[in-house]
Amino acid sequence: MDFQHIIEKIYHEVKPQLGKGKVANYIPALANINPNKIGIAVATIDGNIFTVGDTEDNFSIQSISKVFTLTLAFQKLGDKLWERVGREPSGNAFNSLVQLEYENGKPRNPFVNGGALVITDILTQLFPDTSTEILHLIQEVSGNKDIRIDEEIAKSELETSDRNFALAYFMKSYKNIDSNIDVLMHNYTNQCAVTMNCVDLARSFIYLANHGLNATNNRQILTMSQAKRINSIMITSGLYNESGDFAFRVGMPSKSGVGGGIVSIIPQKLAISCWSPELNQFGNSLIGIEVMERFTTYSGISIF
Amino acid sequence: MDFQHIIEKIYHEVKPQLGKGKVANYIPALANINPNKIGIAVATIDGNIFTVGDTEDNFSIQSISKVFTLTLAFQKLGDKLWERVGREPSGNAFNSLVQLEYENGKPRNPFVNGGALVITDILTQLFPDTSTEILHLIQEVSGNKDIRIDEEIAKSELETSDRNFALAYFMKSYKNIDSNIDVLMHNYTNQCAVTMNCVDLARSFIYLANHGLNATNNRQILTMSQAKRINSIMITSGLYNESGDFAFRVGMPSKSGVGGGIVSIIPQKLAISCWSPELNQFGNSLIGIEVMERFTTYSGISIF
Amino acid sequence: MDFQHIIEKIYHEVKPQLGKGKVANYIPALANINPNKIGIAVATIDGNIFTVGDTEDNFSIQSISKVFTLTLAFQKLGDKLWERVGREPSGNAFNSLVQLEYENGKPRNPFVNGGALVITDILTQLFPDTSTEILHLIQEVSGNKDIRIDEEIAKSELETSDRNFALAYFMKSYKNIDSNIDVLMHNYTNQCAVTMNCVDLARSFIYLANHGLNATNNRQILTMSQAKRINSIMITSGLYNESGDFAFRVGMPSKSGVGGGIVSIIPQKLAISCWSPELNQFGNSLIGIEVMERFTTYSGISIF
Amino acid sequence: MDFQHIIEKIYHEVKPQLGKGKVANYIPALANINPNKIGIAVATIDGNIFTVGDTEDNFSIQSISKVFTLTLAFQKLGDKLWERVGREPSGNAFNSLVQLEYENGKPRNPFVNGGALVITDILTQLFPDTSTEILHLIQEVSGNKDIRIDEEIAKSELETSDRNFALAYFMKSYKNIDSNIDVLMHNYTNQCAVTMNCVDLARSFIYLANHGLNATNNRQILTMSQAKRINSIMITSGLYNESGDFAFRVGMPSKSGVGGGIVSIIPQKLAISCWSPELNQFGNSLIGIEVMERFTTYSGISIF
Repeated sequence: MDFQHIIEKIYHEVKPQLGKGKVANYIPALANINPNKIGIAVATIDGNIFTVGDTEDNFSIQSISKVFTLTLAFQKLGDKLWERVGREPSGNAFNSLVQLEYENGKPRNPFVNGGALVITDILTQLFPDTSTEILHLIQEVSGNKDIRIDEEIAKSELETSDRNFALAYFMKSYKNIDSNIDVLMHNYTNQCAVTMNCVDLARSFIYLANHGLNATNNRQILTMSQAKRINSIMITSGLYNESGDFAFRVGMPSKSGVGGGIVSIIPQKLAISCWSPELNQFGNSLIGIEVMERFTTYSGISIF
Repeated sequence: MDFQHIIEKIYHEVKPQLGKGKVANYIPALANINPNKIGIAVATIDGNIFTVGDTEDNFSIQSISKVFTLTLAFQKLGDKLWERVGREPSGNAFNSLVQLEYENGKPRNPFVNGGALVITDILTQLFPDTSTEILHLIQEVSGNKDIRIDEEIAKSELETSDRNFALAYFMKSYKNIDSNIDVLMHNYTNQCAVTMNCVDLARSFIYLANHGLNATNNRQILTMSQAKRINSIMITSGLYNESGDFAFRVGMPSKSGVGGGIVSIIPQKLAISCWSPELNQFGNSLIGIEVMERFTTYSGISIF
Repeated sequence: MDFQHIIEKIYHEVKPQLGKGKVANYIPALANINPNKIGIAVATIDGNIFTVGDTEDNFSIQSISKVFTLTLAFQKLGDKLWERVGREPSGNAFNSLVQLEYENGKPRNPFVNGGALVITDILTQLFPDTSTEILHLIQEVSGNKDIRIDEEIAKSELETSDRNFALAYFMKSYKNIDSNIDVLMHNYTNQCAVTMNCVDLARSFIYLANHGLNATNNRQILTMSQAKRINSIMITSGLYNESGDFAFRVGMPSKSGVGGGIVSIIPQKLAISCWSPELNQFGNSLIGIEVMERFTTYSGISIF
Repeated sequence: MDFQHIIEKIYHEVKPQLGKGKVANYIPALANINPNKIGIAVATIDGNIFTVGDTEDNFSIQSISKVFTLTLAFQKLGDKLWERVGREPSGNAFNSLVQLEYENGKPRNPFVNGGALVITDILTQLFPDTSTEILHLIQEVSGNKDIRIDEEIAKSELETSDRNFALAYFMKSYKNIDSNIDVLMHNYTNQCAVTMNCVDLARSFIYLANHGLNATNNRQILTMSQAKRINSIMITSGLYNESGDFAFRVGMPSKSGVGGGIVSIIPQKLAISCWSPELNQFGNSLIGIEVMERFTTYSGISIF
């Protein structure tokens, strides 16, 4: 299939929508980004790369990091992981604190903030240098050793993390967080502040399209079953409270971040990433969602 | 693939689990069912049928009817439907009344009771003889003109429907129900009380595995896009509050009912049904879930 | 104390606030009322009456009826009553359905709609002609045999009672309503549609200021302890979600209705009523609240 | 009235109930207390003191401190205070985090933990040495300069304050907390760890029974109106989720703490305190509540 043609066509179609969304402004370092950016990259499981637009700009991956930390924790703990975090969609327009309270401090899934904090808590207990360990995994699956944490964003984020501090202390009160909260929050904001470009991002999700096998070094990152299961969580819960709607319209396992990145996979075939910083009301890249919907339509590839 | 062998193997493996669940007891007519039943049927899109166990017994489809009514309403209204019901997972261990209140009477999706009542309200407004219209669609997609409504179950159910009456009046107070509540509830309990056997059930979901095309009469029931979209709602919301967990473990678009039926599809390939009346804590067939998980494992077929 | 002077002074002070509130519009019969009405009446326990303004106009007592039905049920059942309804403030800006769900169908107190429906259910079970029995009590405590149910308002209200139907069915699903819902709702809308004037209203609350003794016929309506306890529920829960604020500013046990009536008592001294149909955002008479606050200030009488 | 006789009678009547409640065990320092303690003290506004039982033992006042900090903040800010905290009963069996979220970080009243933290935040902003300032007020109103903070309890409490840390960070995310959270929590646990005996406690509430006037030094602590208003909040919200039930049964403005203390006032007459460390399911002194109910019955004094 002519992926290059498809993504170029999409790029030109979605460009007029620039200006319709709003860049995340809750942390200063994110608010200063140039909003007029669109990058699209496709990585196939057999190693081809197709790109269009701003695919060499680095951006902050934010919540997309939750897939990498989940991968690392799943690798280490296996199904024991699910004693501390669920795998049901959160389905809640309201903040997860309410739901956490009803469910006694066990977050619904690893992609709501509460669940991601539990995963990072697990990694904090497992690894003395947690941030480096997470970074190494990301470098490995993307095949790019230059990927870094943006310290300025991490710092800025830590200073505006009152809500996440509240979540962490709240779960600690239910004994579902073991680490010191300051250490935990340091690690958590670090993982959110990892920066990479669209090509890195598409490449770094190939192992999920490929039954857990990392193409760049032929290492089995996860078992086939584990990889499929992360895909299933991405499809029910990968796009915040827009997950169901996105599954309905697009139908690819995906994960988004408030930095404007979004990445989707088609099992056994490819990963496709988009970066465009303007967000819709749900905190997902407005143009990114358009790109994914058009890609599934034009390519005719679907899991359903 | 030798589906006959696979389902026979599964049948013998799961049989020892009889006795571990509990038959639905909230309506007398359902409580009297013989709990020691297991039927499994596979229907492929090219017309083959494989069966094992009690596949000729009729059972009450209950919530599985929500897929058929959604199909009918989607056919008639198209995307206008989504103005009155969402397509996000409900993700709520608590009853949907709470969520309905927060969201001003618009139910989360067509498979929670509130959403199904809205769909039935739409059909009640569209068709003078609503129950017959629904039954005709079910007869068409199953290819079995003998499928009937069990009047005794419908009557018994209507008498124990206080919670659904509450839901209906509640949504009416938000102007999201137009019909007279007594008429609506009559139609709703009728659709739940449709009875069929495992073979009927597997056959009747082939159009969803087959891009909307009904194999028995070659009629396009839904567009390809609509069929895919119902599959996506089934994967995020088809098994009540166990949907995420089931997607995680099994990964097939599925729908269950408290009568003990469950049906899953693999796009472009097949539909598989199971009936076993003992339920788990989420109201899903305990053995049915086991059957689907083993089927995806043994067949190696998966959407992820 | 010169109550006549005080209420006249208040009357002139509050009159300029006419036009600031909004007449209840959820039922047509209430919406048509003349909004420019203010009546104030004081009844002392020794039998004096003081009035100013529109104190001879009849108005719909609406939720104020909940005090009379509670009195009747408390008289008959004593403390057994509290097995089915609580006496905690509801404290919920959200509709009581949410709270009912959390608390398994037992309403917080007799003055939220759910609680009032349970009380009316009790009376429906006790008395064949429930509405007449309630009316007789009201005629007795007000000393006015001409008090009637406004059938037009009752009918109009019944037709717009979807939310209360939902509440009733919901509690029935928890087995906390025994009556047929249509019968119950008929009785409930009848009690809300009782009409009286300000003098009737002030007189009819004297038994609560007077340790349960009805002054007009010297009958002990409630025991001293029961009368005090109803006062305590009025102070914590008598003005919907404004109860705490009203207790803070005014400090008299009180009950209001969306017909624009409000009545307060000072134990061992008096009852004061006001009618003014324009409501504030909480559904309480905007001018009525002003009147009560000024009365407590100018008279210097307070329970605290 | 012979208060000495009344409280001795009550003391002997309630003593057999020792052993029915449970000492607070969420912090070690509180868990070690001798549970077999009962002290009762009455202070009249004309300066008499009556005591029975363990009235010389110091105990931790815990949530009773919220009345003193509210007094201090009300004194300094007047009604501006109510922009940041409400005065409605919380009415929520569930933790106030849920309610805080619905109401955008503004706590329902100054006696839920969220509200008390806001009050302490205000004091933290106003006074460089917040804890000393609070202690001085308590010493003044009790007339006892020896009252101290129990540092061991304060320290123990701080270490088990995850839930309160969560509350504080949560409200900070809504900009309703200004202070550094660690400083705030230090001040908050200090105020809870103030210890005094029953006589101190009864004396220290006389200003609320006495229209704001402190009897020991003749200083007007609050205006008459302010004192009445704190009484009104005590009656609707002073005993956690048992407030309505307690108002129903007892009808005195009161405040309790998990240290086993409880104090009630009768306006213009007296304050009565009880200390008995065994708590009921709502966190109120089991025997303390019995004592107050019997006192109102035997003395026949009531606000209603």
